[in-house]
Amino acid sequence: MASWTLPQPMERALELAVQSAAAGEVPVGAVITRGGEILAEAHNAPRETRDPTAHAEVLAIRLAAEALGEERLTDCELWVTLEPCAMCAGAIVHARIGKLYYAASDPKGGAVEHGARVFDQPQCLHRPEVYSGMGEARAAELLRAFFSDRR
Amino acid sequence: MASWTLPQPMERALELAVQSAAAGEVPVGAVITRGGEILAEAHNAPRETRDPTAHAEVLAIRLAAEALGEERLTDCELWVTLEPCAMCAGAIVHARIGKLYYAASDPKGGAVEHGARVFDQPQCLHRPEVYSGMGEARAAELLRAFFSDRR
Repeated sequence: MASWTLPQPMERALELAVQSAAAGEVPVGAVITRGGEILAEAHNAPRETRDPTAHAEVLAIRLAAEALGEERLTDCELWVTLEPCAMCAGAIVHARIGKLYYAASDPKGGAVEHGARVFDQPQCLHRPEVYSGMGEARAAELLRAFFSDRR
Repeated sequence: MASWTLPQPMERALELAVQSAAAGEVPVGAVITRGGEILAEAHNAPRETRDPTAHAEVLAIRLAAEALGEERLTDCELWVTLEPCAMCAGAIVHARIGKLYYAASDPKGGAVEHGARVFDQPQCLHRPEVYSGMGEARAAELLRAFFSDRR
């Protein structure tokens, strides 16, 4: 079977998802890039940090804003292994992320192509370009294995 | 004209909104209570902190979770002066906030009774009880005055 090469930031996000599972967190990883360079990266950490807002995307957005000293990440790309939830999609709007790449879609918790469809609301004040699917099989398998081990 | 007494946490949230405006931030304040005691409070601070996720609700949720040493705020109430946005409504879901009280509704950015309607989605995994309207005139006037001064 052919193995497809993913863009490096998505490869890195998948590595972070593996680290997330090893830390006992739902395996989701996120990377923020600008001009081809990684500005920030994080994996899910609500248990470790006891912070319900500590999803990979929110953590990466906070780190990237800190690194740039700016509230807005207009020229940045966010790479994440799972479709963002409503909280994370909202954070992406506030941060003015330019492009969003996500691997697996999430019919249960996702809020981009499912549920709240945050970017599709008429009031939404910033819409990133959205690209999905690259690396989805690997990202979904990490999640499947994680939840299967917990049963 | 009669002046109505608000529950103390909403009075406090309005005070925090006034402080927010004085700090140059959009005037929104939030308080989290449990068993009648204030656990955490915050005002909007994305400019000051250079953190696009630093809405009053998210900051208060983080502080309350830290104070309790728990990721979930099941028995807690959140009092906020403005209808939460998608990011904040999602954070309320993840934190399992029991009751949400908000003052002014927000047709532009709100995601409870407007737009993404986060709690109304069939997939939404936790729905707080929602009470709105108390203190709405004062909360809305703070916002109106803030944006009027900036024009």
